[in-house]
Amino acid sequence: MYSLYFLTERVNALKIAIMGYGVVGSGVAALLKKNSGIIRENTGAELELKRILDIRNFENDEFSCLMTKDFTDIENDDEIDVVVETMGGLNPAFDFVSRCLKKKKHVVSSNKELVAEKGSELLALAEEAGVNFLFEASVGGGIPIIRPLTRCLAGNRISALAGILNGTTNFIMTKMITERSDFSEALALAQKLGYAEKDPTADVEGIDACRKICILASLAFGSHISPSCIHTEGITKITLSDVELAERFGYVIKLIAQAKMLENSKVAIMVSPALVKKSSMLSMVNDVFNACLVRGDQTGDVLLYGKGAGKSATASAVVGDIIDCSDNSEKRKVFGWKKEACGLVEDYLNVPVRLFVRTGNSEKEKILSAFKNAEIIENSDKNELAFITDEAAEGKLRDSLSASGLEVLSVLRVTDY
Amino acid sequence: MYSLYFLTERVNALKIAIMGYGVVGSGVAALLKKNSGIIRENTGAELELKRILDIRNFENDEFSCLMTKDFTDIENDDEIDVVVETMGGLNPAFDFVSRCLKKKKHVVSSNKELVAEKGSELLALAEEAGVNFLFEASVGGGIPIIRPLTRCLAGNRISALAGILNGTTNFIMTKMITERSDFSEALALAQKLGYAEKDPTADVEGIDACRKICILASLAFGSHISPSCIHTEGITKITLSDVELAERFGYVIKLIAQAKMLENSKVAIMVSPALVKKSSMLSMVNDVFNACLVRGDQTGDVLLYGKGAGKSATASAVVGDIIDCSDNSEKRKVFGWKKEACGLVEDYLNVPVRLFVRTGNSEKEKILSAFKNAEIIENSDKNELAFITDEAAEGKLRDSLSASGLEVLSVLRVTDY
Repeated sequence: MYSLYFLTERVNALKIAIMGYGVVGSGVAALLKKNSGIIRENTGAELELKRILDIRNFENDEFSCLMTKDFTDIENDDEIDVVVETMGGLNPAFDFVSRCLKKKKHVVSSNKELVAEKGSELLALAEEAGVNFLFEASVGGGIPIIRPLTRCLAGNRISALAGILNGTTNFIMTKMITERSDFSEALALAQKLGYAEKDPTADVEGIDACRKICILASLAFGSHISPSCIHTEGITKITLSDVELAERFGYVIKLIAQAKMLENSKVAIMVSPALVKKSSMLSMVNDVFNACLVRGDQTGDVLLYGKGAGKSATASAVVGDIIDCSDNSEKRKVFGWKKEACGLVEDYLNVPVRLFVRTGNSEKEKILSAFKNAEIIENSDKNELAFITDEAAEGKLRDSLSASGLEVLSVLRVTDY
Repeated sequence: MYSLYFLTERVNALKIAIMGYGVVGSGVAALLKKNSGIIRENTGAELELKRILDIRNFENDEFSCLMTKDFTDIENDDEIDVVVETMGGLNPAFDFVSRCLKKKKHVVSSNKELVAEKGSELLALAEEAGVNFLFEASVGGGIPIIRPLTRCLAGNRISALAGILNGTTNFIMTKMITERSDFSEALALAQKLGYAEKDPTADVEGIDACRKICILASLAFGSHISPSCIHTEGITKITLSDVELAERFGYVIKLIAQAKMLENSKVAIMVSPALVKKSSMLSMVNDVFNACLVRGDQTGDVLLYGKGAGKSATASAVVGDIIDCSDNSEKRKVFGWKKEACGLVEDYLNVPVRLFVRTGNSEKEKILSAFKNAEIIENSDKNELAFITDEAAEGKLRDSLSASGLEVLSVLRVTDY
């Protein structure tokens, strides 16, 4: 079935096991088979898939001879150099990954939940064992993000990150913007096309994007930032009226995951729908594509864009990490972050922001008495007004809104990216 | 002047010399001083600047105590681990870099002319000596391009690269598109702002972009591709009439450096102004910004965007490479390309393309008899027509144009990125 070369055991080949033969895991196996020649040519790395762990049966699969249901077949096989974890979820992934690291095997993971929740512990285990724990595939699918951030931009002090890190919600927002579908129509289409799950909560409520920005912010700012600390809003309440009014101000609405280093050395980090200027590169990121903007003190804004999910794209990121292990097989990369720092995350209500507000009132005077420089746009069809405030601490702006007597229909943040 | 920490000799620090204390070289020195703390925190790398080579005098410079005019002070100093080459030009850079590599010093270069012309020889020397020859800064300034291409995307078979790789010409095209300045006005503004040199030939004729696409294509396709093999056109002949008509077809005109792997295993590679769809991310790359699109068989299109030039941004890329040497100080990365392969580059006239043609004729019939499916747009003010052909080999399309009897005012390629 596969080429003789692929099967032949090579003395110097890096031996790989995959845990979890789902979409990504099977993509990694397929990629290793298809592109082993070009990988060897380009990087000198000889990669050999030795084992696949999954509790399901895959009798007619081309890799069935490599399958096992017993984790210890991997744990106790001293020949296995790199373990790919593509199981997803915290359990048993955390246990298995920990045990592989303790056995001095490099681990490459695509599991954003595991990395966002347990990254700090696993990085410490990897350091102790002198092996790598890498996870390029956990954020942005096939887009190079983690290595550029931690390596190419390592000479920078990073001041901000802003990403469109969830393909499902970006597809929905794109349909709302370009075709004026409402949220539920766009979600139904995303489900029909396989871009959204039956239970879309983790995507549309921003949970998935939250895990990803935690990983990036932990790397950029050097301490673990846990998803539970982060103010997270989804896109379920965005209406076409918001979309249209934002557009008249020159913006599109996107689900933005962002983290900024504040002057007080705390990190402002949140996930929420936000207005992005039409002149921004981020505004052009459409459909299921993802992008991440990195603002460095030396480089200014760098943007990394591509497919944020999918079998082949995510497998490509995993294989990039495996190749890195082959380079560093006798030496650990310095990589990762320290454990959680107390009080690192600033309360979002203290963070300076400009707000877009849609109200059911048509009295401009009321708006201007509460927000004296506000730009105001009318939607006369609906007897609604929208305005954008000056920058101030979010809590203060929200207090002014409460005190203003305005009928507030929606409040969205305005980005400066 | 600088902190004690920065001056103290550290036993395990990587010792660095800079050759060429111009814009980029002085940026590297400044960055090493300013961000040494964050670099150590993030990567574990201890970087110590030991020597700076320049033939000029810098008596009042803060680094004057490190200055030398004698290359052998670097060549013969066994403590120096990494040499940064930011001199530019081929001579004496080639001689100096060769000698440093032979002395088993890693070399990091920002010199695109050197890498594009002599990369193959220098990579071979580095391999022989077991050290790194790295050059992230030679393409795209501070944008992570080379490492993502060669490492993160190493699991891919790359099918195409398309970049806006020259900031000067992109600034000029942006002014022509957004402000309807003509070429000479826009060039004059670029010169006034310091974005273009007094003699702008290397930029506006595409020579700079050509060197950069050679470097990227050599990495992506594994064999040295010399700038002299590449069909290169600049932007000096682009008129506002081209810009306006392209816009009416839904395109903007950009100087695009592109390379594609063809089905016959030859590489189509060229630099020329070309039409880019307004829905493409590349169309949004404005002013002096650069971007590079990489099309991989696994990831699909990935785009890397940022500042393509400038002191701090370019220094950031150099320092990323230095950090890589600290990781690999006892082991060479597998990285680079083989020497030139005979006949690798396809004659551009054989490459399939769609052409945008502007003519001084107003007879649509003549166009349709030569190009039967052509879309045609009129510019009635000027008694001109423009049309876009179907895809065919460029030579064939040009033959049809010659035979058509049309008065051809300009011919531009249409991209599919």
